Amino acid sequence: MKDSERCRVDLIRLGELGRRGGERVERREQLSMETGLIRVEGSPEIKASKDYLIEKMKEAGLKVRFDPVGNIFGRREGFKASGGAVMAGSHLDSVLNGGMFDGALGVIATLEAVRRMEDEGFQNDRPIEVAVFTGEEGSAFHMVLLGSSVLIGEATYEEGQEIRNDEGVSLREALREQGHVGDFQLDLDDIEYFVELHVEQGPILHNEDIPLGVVENVTGLSWVKAIIRGEENHAGTTPMSMRIDPLVASADIIKFVNRRANELAAESGTTVGTTGRLIVHPGLPNIIPGTVELGIDIRDTNDATKKALIKEVISEITSLEGRYGVRTETEVLFDHKPSALSGVVIGAIKRSAEEVGIRYHMMNSGAGHDAQNIAHRVKTGMIFVPSVGGVSHSPLEWTDWGDIERGVKVLTRTLKNLSAL
Amino acid sequence: MKDSERCRVDLIRLGELGRRGGERVERREQLSMETGLIRVEGSPEIKASKDYLIEKMKEAGLKVRFDPVGNIFGRREGFKASGGAVMAGSHLDSVLNGGMFDGALGVIATLEAVRRMEDEGFQNDRPIEVAVFTGEEGSAFHMVLLGSSVLIGEATYEEGQEIRNDEGVSLREALREQGHVGDFQLDLDDIEYFVELHVEQGPILHNEDIPLGVVENVTGLSWVKAIIRGEENHAGTTPMSMRIDPLVASADIIKFVNRRANELAAESGTTVGTTGRLIVHPGLPNIIPGTVELGIDIRDTNDATKKALIKEVISEITSLEGRYGVRTETEVLFDHKPSALSGVVIGAIKRSAEEVGIRYHMMNSGAGHDAQNIAHRVKTGMIFVPSVGGVSHSPLEWTDWGDIERGVKVLTRTLKNLSAL
Repeated sequence: MKDSERCRVDLIRLGELGRRGGERVERREQLSMETGLIRVEGSPEIKASKDYLIEKMKEAGLKVRFDPVGNIFGRREGFKASGGAVMAGSHLDSVLNGGMFDGALGVIATLEAVRRMEDEGFQNDRPIEVAVFTGEEGSAFHMVLLGSSVLIGEATYEEGQEIRNDEGVSLREALREQGHVGDFQLDLDDIEYFVELHVEQGPILHNEDIPLGVVENVTGLSWVKAIIRGEENHAGTTPMSMRIDPLVASADIIKFVNRRANELAAESGTTVGTTGRLIVHPGLPNIIPGTVELGIDIRDTNDATKKALIKEVISEITSLEGRYGVRTETEVLFDHKPSALSGVVIGAIKRSAEEVGIRYHMMNSGAGHDAQNIAHRVKTGMIFVPSVGGVSHSPLEWTDWGDIERGVKVLTRTLKNLSAL
Repeated sequence: MKDSERCRVDLIRLGELGRRGGERVERREQLSMETGLIRVEGSPEIKASKDYLIEKMKEAGLKVRFDPVGNIFGRREGFKASGGAVMAGSHLDSVLNGGMFDGALGVIATLEAVRRMEDEGFQNDRPIEVAVFTGEEGSAFHMVLLGSSVLIGEATYEEGQEIRNDEGVSLREALREQGHVGDFQLDLDDIEYFVELHVEQGPILHNEDIPLGVVENVTGLSWVKAIIRGEENHAGTTPMSMRIDPLVASADIIKFVNRRANELAAESGTTVGTTGRLIVHPGLPNIIPGTVELGIDIRDTNDATKKALIKEVISEITSLEGRYGVRTETEVLFDHKPSALSGVVIGAIKRSAEEVGIRYHMMNSGAGHDAQNIAHRVKTGMIFVPSVGGVSHSPLEWTDWGDIERGVKVLTRTLKNLSAL
């Protein structure tokens, strides 16, 4: 079996194992809204997928260990006595009704990089750690980046184990039941570099026909929640002049968030602002709404710009009180800082891409990734491959096999180069 | 028992019978969100309420008959041999979690008018028909103005009987089970005048401190449904310049409907336009919406103005395609004409109010009523009494007892005057 074929077989098999109906998808044309993965932590799909992966890791000569929150590490020892390890990897869990490459690709690409080293008899100076992080998507256990957050100490192993899914099952119980848990605790001080390969999940590489993205920053992300209260009334009997309509007021916010994000993006290129959630109560055509809830997503790789925009949005929401007579409440649900990735690792990825003759684009990540966590403790880089049409978190997510092979080539070379640094 | 006391006792008792918990409410301060009525057709609450009412109708000397869709008629014969009857009444059913006066007041006020005629030995020339229409609110059987629509021939008795509630029970079965159905079929050609007394359900009388409204027109009502489709995408990875966001486009429509309705209302005073329904798919903060559904309510007592506004709104929605790249679909779900009420009956109500010394306000009805149906066949008028704060379709709906007595006085005099016309 050719190298590129081996990687393709693994991804197709993991897709099959991740689908409730077990559909096998080899070509983009076979995708439909019915071929989504529900490979969430604790599911039979993730058990089958992890079992398959662990077998493949062992076949590749890796020493497999589990930590108390189910992070999986596969070690290939280094050929030089000293020096921190080079870690690479991603996650296996999916969103509800997700695609077959988000996460899984980074895991399989790293495994494949190690297999190619083995085949070539390549002697890596530093140890290589293949990492599979638990619950990146937060689909079942409702904490995003679960495994990597515990790894960097944002939560303790015990706190991670105690998180429960909607059925009331704790992560500890779910992992024990599936046999994917252990006592190993990775010390990030023993890791020198980390690289995550991932699908872009956006349209830039696809639109510009560039096969590879080298990520400089992972965006900072904030959610603002707003409640706008007016006066619920009969739409027929309440004259226009006697209304306090919170949806009319909310329309100003939808426009404001969009307009200001567009203006800031035109300057910096990295600002995005989205009103993705809007709930009208009671929501009947013949009743003037009483309350509107808004959920606004604001991201920027520049933390100061993001913070300023959050402030502007909150101030605009508050100003509705004077303009419309509504009452408003706002809350910043969270405000995560952007992560600047490591110049050393970025340099290694660029050099590697050049060595294997693959064009790349410098870019930022608008989505969150385990890499942004690991970057707080370890010199970290990210490699993106194109998402067809920019589609992600959808059964229709796709990355062409040729682009996957190009990504694997650059990742393999990068791990080799970092191992020698 | 004083006359006004008798009417109050009936309304309080009907409120008790209409509440699932049987709470007794005599004063506005006793109202809460827990004291709502769920007196829908087919419920134990409507059976108890109709049983109580029928007993009271019989006590008042009325001849009670049921028609095949459960409309109830109570006849007091006329003292002159010829001439069509004067009909008055309203409905007993409520919205889900409604108030104790909407509908019930018109029924009890008419019953009380007859009782006062009886007490006074008043000899009405024309027969009086007390009417109780089935399922005005459409809460259980999902057809508004059910009983009066059948009565005017918009649907046949059989079609009305075949309508089923969410439990799959037909109206025929529900009425039979409760014993409130019969073979009588009222011929509207035998009715000369119809009067409905109702709570205003709006704020005008309460705000202007006027105890009575004489209705000239029942508004025409139209619902426009729109679907705006954009491109569902990741809110983090999709640059501002690459978005097609249907919620941003929809904000224009919310503003447009409100601005144009305000402008037209400033000219005519009767236009209202409301975006009361707005549903965002998928509705998560971190996903650029793929689709937005809008439900727009447009009303005017001037049919031409209403039709022109509907056209403007649809044209504005369509214009989003060019401005935002969205795809749009629009549908006029229904477009009911306004009903102009009868000059003869309006004149009789005004004269009666003047005779009993009660100030009134000429106004329009922004809500739908059985009277708008009957008006297609019979000379019809409506009397409004104030709703405290304009609140309706809510457990907190209230009308002061003094205003109820003033309404009953005017209704009684009106029926007497019409009977002599």
